[in-house]
Amino acid sequence: IDQGDSARVKAILEDLHFADIAEIIDDLNLERAIFIIKLLDSETTSEALMELDEDQRDRILNELSPKEIADELEEMDTDDAADILNELPDILAQEVISNMGDEQHAEDIVDLLRYDENSAGGLMAKELVKVNENWTVTGCVSEMRAQAENVTRVHSIYVVDNQQKLKGRLSLKDLLTSAETTPIKDVYIPKVDYVNVNTSGEEVARVMRKYDLEAIPVVDELDRLVGRITIDDIVDFITEEAEKDYQLASGISQDVEANDSILDLTRARLPWLVLGLVGGIGAAAIMGQFESLFEEYAVLFLFTPLIAAMAGNVGVQSSAIIVQGIANDDLRGSISSRLLKEVLLAMLNGVILALLLLVYTYFAQGEILTSIAISTSLFCVIIVAGLIGTFVPLFLHKRGIDPALATGPFITTSNDIFGILIYFLLAKAIIGI
Amino acid sequence: IDQGDSARVKAILEDLHFADIAEIIDDLNLERAIFIIKLLDSETTSEALMELDEDQRDRILNELSPKEIADELEEMDTDDAADILNELPDILAQEVISNMGDEQHAEDIVDLLRYDENSAGGLMAKELVKVNENWTVTGCVSEMRAQAENVTRVHSIYVVDNQQKLKGRLSLKDLLTSAETTPIKDVYIPKVDYVNVNTSGEEVARVMRKYDLEAIPVVDELDRLVGRITIDDIVDFITEEAEKDYQLASGISQDVEANDSILDLTRARLPWLVLGLVGGIGAAAIMGQFESLFEEYAVLFLFTPLIAAMAGNVGVQSSAIIVQGIANDDLRGSISSRLLKEVLLAMLNGVILALLLLVYTYFAQGEILTSIAISTSLFCVIIVAGLIGTFVPLFLHKRGIDPALATGPFITTSNDIFGILIYFLLAKAIIGI
Repeated sequence: IDQGDSARVKAILEDLHFADIAEIIDDLNLERAIFIIKLLDSETTSEALMELDEDQRDRILNELSPKEIADELEEMDTDDAADILNELPDILAQEVISNMGDEQHAEDIVDLLRYDENSAGGLMAKELVKVNENWTVTGCVSEMRAQAENVTRVHSIYVVDNQQKLKGRLSLKDLLTSAETTPIKDVYIPKVDYVNVNTSGEEVARVMRKYDLEAIPVVDELDRLVGRITIDDIVDFITEEAEKDYQLASGISQDVEANDSILDLTRARLPWLVLGLVGGIGAAAIMGQFESLFEEYAVLFLFTPLIAAMAGNVGVQSSAIIVQGIANDDLRGSISSRLLKEVLLAMLNGVILALLLLVYTYFAQGEILTSIAISTSLFCVIIVAGLIGTFVPLFLHKRGIDPALATGPFITTSNDIFGILIYFLLAKAIIGI
Repeated sequence: IDQGDSARVKAILEDLHFADIAEIIDDLNLERAIFIIKLLDSETTSEALMELDEDQRDRILNELSPKEIADELEEMDTDDAADILNELPDILAQEVISNMGDEQHAEDIVDLLRYDENSAGGLMAKELVKVNENWTVTGCVSEMRAQAENVTRVHSIYVVDNQQKLKGRLSLKDLLTSAETTPIKDVYIPKVDYVNVNTSGEEVARVMRKYDLEAIPVVDELDRLVGRITIDDIVDFITEEAEKDYQLASGISQDVEANDSILDLTRARLPWLVLGLVGGIGAAAIMGQFESLFEEYAVLFLFTPLIAAMAGNVGVQSSAIIVQGIANDDLRGSISSRLLKEVLLAMLNGVILALLLLVYTYFAQGEILTSIAISTSLFCVIIVAGLIGTFVPLFLHKRGIDPALATGPFITTSNDIFGILIYFLLAKAIIGI
């Protein structure tokens, strides 16, 4: 179809939802994708562009002129347009902005570029419906009608004073049932949830989830209403954050997906593998210090992978629970009470696992002393691993670092080394050499 | 405050949002929590109950009579009430239902209990605004007013025919601007996204995210409109799913949180640790087969933790990417092309890591043959680990099993064993013994 029959392609695509068009474009090669983008009007393509895979979008934008990109951005909501500009090289972004016809829109977008991507300011859109508390119902309705044209979905009508400070919200029902000359002051609802431009995205998500909100107004440092965040952006945000945490826990450091290039995937995976390699070399070096035990107690060396694996597993389990508790903001009690609980938990798990191992090694090897040495060490390694897994994320969080970094390879590697060190030291002491 | 002054407690709580009340109740002991629940009217408490921590809610419901629970459920939306009934023991649930005064409401709730919790039927609520295509605008408005009383937020007005089949939706604007005698048939929008009661929750979330929907109607097998799902329920669903996947990847098998009891936490964590223990014992048994190498090639044994760790890390990385790709439904290409890509990726990573290890072992140990043996084995282990990590989740998914199970301890443990086996076999072959 793509080889020329514009009219037919257009007819087919026009009936589709923009998200479906985006899926089609994602699967096409660059040349055909550009053909489609240029074929459709910018109202349709701007929406589809937003839904595209990031890499494909970058390739397409590279082929368009600044003027063409500007036309697309004009049709977008301010928050989406700002996201796109953020992806472009600085010089190109400048050019695109100067090519935009609607100055107010351009100004709004540039305004949004100031904020951190991960803050309420970076997530919000400028499009909203607001009325002044001093207006009357009639004045209000006609103003609203004009504003609503730029807003895809009206979630709430916000009320501001002469200084643009957020005062409350207006229910459509109250507006329609009030006398025409009533001032807004007398009918609005003064209670409204809001967030500050500097509030973190996580906190916005938490508030909106807690109160089941579909949109939340954003105010600046002077309490002036500057934007609003809608739930669909928060859904995307939550999904992305969850994916990022999941990838971090699995030792993948950048936002990649299965369809990315081998080079991108290597860049995201190799650093953690190098960390693991260094950890493994460290473990080998430690074991080398105990080489004198080789002849008589070779059996100790057979269980080093077991000790390392258990230390890693326990560490990841404890840190995962702490990381989630921090993310949900529902950790109660002090750090020391957390650590105490983890010790008790590790002791319970440790006793059971150590007993299992004791029984196995005794029957398999027949030497009671080495069996006791191995299983006692396992018990202690589990406790230490649990403590490290609990402490590190709590510590990182206190220092303002994302605790999700602490899960996965980081904890596994450090616990491998500590585990093996403790294991040999203890085993040596128990066997009495 | 709690010791008696009901009036004051009530005055304070009445000004709070139900989500905040829930947080307060979560932190109180049972006796005080019950005191508050009984003090406030059921309209407030029913909302707060839904927001409570599950364990605390169970304890509170245990103390209430079936009649009292029924009163709470009457105030809830049908989907929330059904969720609560699902948590109660069967006999108690029966009693609660027979104590409900509003028969239509009770019937709706019982209806929802039929569906799997994880399907669109289990997620939907019965509350919605629907109109018949044969009504006129006037009849429609008065009907809608009556229906809207039961619905907290009106997202859309759905249009059905005489058989209750979903035909489309109605825009409020069109309704208000049409002549009073116009039949609905002439003004409704026939295009509407919907899901079937049997659609999985993941799929509902995907559709709503893709099209940025705030509510989606649900139809039964005969295309009859039976409910709708709102975005706030989907936000909760997405969050819970992400937490579950994260916990599975970390070796935690049930939905637990940091504040749960030590026994609950042990139940969730111990099974995976036992799996790790068995894996470690397996690795020890394999290494035992190569005990004859001990005297001359002790250095091989020093690197077993490194090999095991790398096999585990690579496996977790590959499986995590596949699991996410499956969850987002954006894996393209066949299984064999996936595996080929993973081999290429693993070769690239493997060459770099093996070279690093070769340089280190050569300088640290000075023996070129063992150094080559160790690093070549690492290279092969990385490739096999990547293949296992890619294949297992794809295989599980094909068999209808949640691929998230494959990440974490499962992959780590099996890769430990395979890794060590390959390592010794190869090393032995290369050294030529």
